[in-house]
Amino acid sequence: MLRGEITTAIRRALMQELAAVGYGRLSIEAVARRAGVSKTAIYRRWNSKLDLVLEIVAAAAHGKLPALDTGTLRGDLTLLFQAVAHALRHPLASQIIPDLLAEAARNPSIDATLRQVLHARQQDIGGRLVNRAVQRGELPADTDPDAAIDLIVGPLYWRIAIARLPLTDSYLERLVESVVAGLGATGAVPHPRAAPMAG
Amino acid sequence: MLRGEITTAIRRALMQELAAVGYGRLSIEAVARRAGVSKTAIYRRWNSKLDLVLEIVAAAAHGKLPALDTGTLRGDLTLLFQAVAHALRHPLASQIIPDLLAEAARNPSIDATLRQVLHARQQDIGGRLVNRAVQRGELPADTDPDAAIDLIVGPLYWRIAIARLPLTDSYLERLVESVVAGLGATGAVPHPRAAPMAG
Repeated sequence: MLRGEITTAIRRALMQELAAVGYGRLSIEAVARRAGVSKTAIYRRWNSKLDLVLEIVAAAAHGKLPALDTGTLRGDLTLLFQAVAHALRHPLASQIIPDLLAEAARNPSIDATLRQVLHARQQDIGGRLVNRAVQRGELPADTDPDAAIDLIVGPLYWRIAIARLPLTDSYLERLVESVVAGLGATGAVPHPRAAPMAG
Repeated sequence: MLRGEITTAIRRALMQELAAVGYGRLSIEAVARRAGVSKTAIYRRWNSKLDLVLEIVAAAAHGKLPALDTGTLRGDLTLLFQAVAHALRHPLASQIIPDLLAEAARNPSIDATLRQVLHARQQDIGGRLVNRAVQRGELPADTDPDAAIDLIVGPLYWRIAIARLPLTDSYLERLVESVVAGLGATGAVPHPRAAPMAG
């Protein structure tokens, strides 16, 4: 294998091992075996199991999001929900992230990396979606991007990753309406559906 | 120790071990040592580590909720959010539940128990809070309790357990308004704030 291929094989093997046994039981031996490389090949690249996991989680979290520029808040939310629903079905979300969240309470390095990665992600989405909606006058100018993300991502995360109830198209359509109304509720701009009533 | 005391000591030791090392690394030996009992005392009561963990999670999840009968949806949500915020700071939520969610993808018994416990809990809250709000005319009659719970619990869960950003009183006040607006958005009943505009 070439150098880049070895790194790719190690990363893939790590994700599979993490999903299969979790961080607590993960061994570098098993990752090496699954990747078809020597333990030395892993330790040449990363100092520890922790380093390896943190780098790969950070890389996965920086994966691409859809452009989120449909011209309306409803359109952007619909697109984002589809992307989030897809991402949450990946083992990274259903197994690896819960594992690492549990580890974070025991390990300050995991805690710091997860916080940083998640907050960068929140701010990225906030920057794209919330700020554009504010510019278009769809959301109050004082909308707090972090609070908005809680309202946007929280219900879907709860549904898929925690309650693990089914997701239908009509559920997603209703969720878009709920979130639009919820986001509009705390600011100066009236709820989009309520606006015509005021005329 | 009396029989009941032994059981209590085992339960407490299990929660502490689960929080400290996670399900994957949990050993009955360590639970017995921490509880000050023999391994036999544990195996006399539970067949396996899995049985022990499942019974204790189910018991914890059936802990009491506030009465949620303040007379308004806003009042009930405020009370529920305070209870949820408190519960989510317990190690059960920050460490044990994420661990078990990760295990659930690998273990059908954990998966089934978690689903059952969480769904019973959702329906319990739904029955109290959503149905009363429907009866008072604050929410549409066709409100789906499961979808409502996603919107009610999801943002707070995301904030505390995933993004782990700070929680302030003003955040919680705004979240109540957002959730009330979001819940009212998908049905026939107008948004509470929008109603006066229509007059």
